[in-house]
Amino acid sequence: MLKTEIEYYDMLSVLGRSLQPNAIRKLTLLLGNKQVISLAAGAPSFETFPIEELAEISARVIRDRGRVALQYGPTRGQPALVEEVASILRTRGIEGCKPSEIVMTSGSQQGLDLISRVLLDPGDIALVELPSYIGGLIALHNAQADLVGVEQDDGGIVIDDLKAKIKRANSDGKRVKCLYTIPNFQNPSGVTLAADRRSELLDIADEHDLLIIEDDAYFDLFFDTEISRLVPLAALRPDRVVYLGTFSKVLAPGVRCAWLRAPEALASKVEIAKEGADLSSSVLDQTLVVEAIREGLIERRLPELRRFYHVRCAAMLKALEKFAPAGARWTKPIGGFFILMELALGADTTAMLLDAIESGVAYVPGQPFFVDGSGANTLRLAFSKENEDAIADGVERMCRVFQNDAAGANA
Amino acid sequence: MLKTEIEYYDMLSVLGRSLQPNAIRKLTLLLGNKQVISLAAGAPSFETFPIEELAEISARVIRDRGRVALQYGPTRGQPALVEEVASILRTRGIEGCKPSEIVMTSGSQQGLDLISRVLLDPGDIALVELPSYIGGLIALHNAQADLVGVEQDDGGIVIDDLKAKIKRANSDGKRVKCLYTIPNFQNPSGVTLAADRRSELLDIADEHDLLIIEDDAYFDLFFDTEISRLVPLAALRPDRVVYLGTFSKVLAPGVRCAWLRAPEALASKVEIAKEGADLSSSVLDQTLVVEAIREGLIERRLPELRRFYHVRCAAMLKALEKFAPAGARWTKPIGGFFILMELALGADTTAMLLDAIESGVAYVPGQPFFVDGSGANTLRLAFSKENEDAIADGVERMCRVFQNDAAGANA
Repeated sequence: MLKTEIEYYDMLSVLGRSLQPNAIRKLTLLLGNKQVISLAAGAPSFETFPIEELAEISARVIRDRGRVALQYGPTRGQPALVEEVASILRTRGIEGCKPSEIVMTSGSQQGLDLISRVLLDPGDIALVELPSYIGGLIALHNAQADLVGVEQDDGGIVIDDLKAKIKRANSDGKRVKCLYTIPNFQNPSGVTLAADRRSELLDIADEHDLLIIEDDAYFDLFFDTEISRLVPLAALRPDRVVYLGTFSKVLAPGVRCAWLRAPEALASKVEIAKEGADLSSSVLDQTLVVEAIREGLIERRLPELRRFYHVRCAAMLKALEKFAPAGARWTKPIGGFFILMELALGADTTAMLLDAIESGVAYVPGQPFFVDGSGANTLRLAFSKENEDAIADGVERMCRVFQNDAAGANA
Repeated sequence: MLKTEIEYYDMLSVLGRSLQPNAIRKLTLLLGNKQVISLAAGAPSFETFPIEELAEISARVIRDRGRVALQYGPTRGQPALVEEVASILRTRGIEGCKPSEIVMTSGSQQGLDLISRVLLDPGDIALVELPSYIGGLIALHNAQADLVGVEQDDGGIVIDDLKAKIKRANSDGKRVKCLYTIPNFQNPSGVTLAADRRSELLDIADEHDLLIIEDDAYFDLFFDTEISRLVPLAALRPDRVVYLGTFSKVLAPGVRCAWLRAPEALASKVEIAKEGADLSSSVLDQTLVVEAIREGLIERRLPELRRFYHVRCAAMLKALEKFAPAGARWTKPIGGFFILMELALGADTTAMLLDAIESGVAYVPGQPFFVDGSGANTLRLAFSKENEDAIADGVERMCRVFQNDAAGANA
């Protein structure tokens, strides 16, 4: 329940999209004065940060390699890190992945921004999942693409709806250029794209010459051992897929270190775009991450991280079973940080948020994640931040607010 | 003369703009096989990096504040750092500068990119100095502005030419939206904008409703004590100036930490653009810099840094006096890293570069810095990287190549 600066800012930033200024002022006061259980923050838990190891590594790399670690670096990233990432991607099934296909970025957000700038012309259609990650939607929107939502169910993108949306766009004379997808433990839905749909989706992409932007930020954080279903789209069709990954969830997000992997020619364009955007990402951060990889710090902590989030997810699912109001549904993630909850039609999760915070619990209203404006009765719940007791307590408080509201509406 | 990875990349990146692919291949071989004195690299000397201090600080801030330093941070930057920067800017004469005017960026390059994206519509005219920093030109160009060059002399921007360029644009029915300037020890010319021209320039900006983008990356690195002439344009007219500064030159560029200061409403737009671009800059880097500021590490090293670069500049000027070919001219900087050299008309510094490298010295041909395609007889010399002996040796080798070429042309 500890409140950090980022928690405060994160809440205001995400919630700011949903609320009116006077509601934001009220929220600010509430957050400033109260201990609020946050099921809103989508960040990894600081309890997972390997603080002592990173302190030791940082001092060591600055002392031993400060001349390089503190100097400007190549735009594509530190060569040693680019090599390590190519090697990681080969283990994920992207056969023969080469350093020339990689550009290191300042978080996956920068990768999304750069590929959007390189790829999209104003008015191009970018297909996105309903719902999808707001940062991805913003990057595509900033490149002046028209965003068209594709339905998801518990198996991810609904293939028939994908076909229908492409058909409609084409009959309107519009160019569909790409599909943005988060196939594993999606943000915000927690849903994973089913294995059979992965190949169907790629066949459709081939047929219509779409590029896939595959955002696989949560890949490593699966809860069971049956991971064959998680094979990246980029492994199946490397020429058609831009693959984004990050060290934010498995090491630490304050070290802004992620990658974009694309077919070579496209990676070169992204590199040029990045040169104009910031010359290079933090060289110190990259040097830290290289060392963390080489020492096995990331790999050996993964089983523990998976257990850590699995336990929290299970606690949230259990609490939802117990306390959820009638007519509510929610997703059952097999990894990641998030559950999407859907209340009965007519419920307004934005309107109920201030009551929830007054009751000591915060969540993120779902509507901003839906580009078609739907989702008013949905909300994103993150199980990454709070411990099991706080999650159970928070879900109970939240569900009581939902119950009261439904009772009030029926009275 | 030590060759680091970055030196190699930096050369290829800058020179890549001037050379044909086969020349680049030849250059790659030369750089790989030879010890080359680099008067090309525009980076600070690694000899100035406070390696031991930063090693100690990094370990300490991760141990003491890892929960924040390793977590996501607010888009605008770490609140403590934003406060420190506002305070620094007040000491530079920007009265009442507030945190709400500041956005921390990943190097000034990102500030240039973000302000260009926020400010410019395709076809808007952006005025730039002849010559100017390539990274700034790229950022403006990427926002699809039309770049129009304004002449400089030893006192910086030539006011009459500025007026003429605005007049011509207006009579063509075009909107001049901004002027990009590096008023102190400019990259690549080394020239400083004269005090009387600063107010004239601002009056013109008022008259024509131009925004000034003031890139003051080298502010702290003046060589004498008469710094009253360096008063930022932003101090004179804060409502009309976006002011960019960085810790890259006075601490270390691998720590990607810079700022953009703008009128409040514009700073808010830049913050929104940055959220889509990368969520936030490296939180670890920012936390390091806050600590370096608070401990006085940056401030107390400035006199030493100024002497360090002053000695190197003096060595270069002395060598140029001694070895420069007839008809050559060069600037006499009072700070920064760079001297712009101009050979006799007809000389082609791009064509002579490979000969220079064969002779063991590298420089940057000037033409890419001139948006009007002029400058074929100019070159940028950096005195930041090599020590005095290497500078003298390098200038002598380089001038011998220029002499031989001129003799060949006259033969």
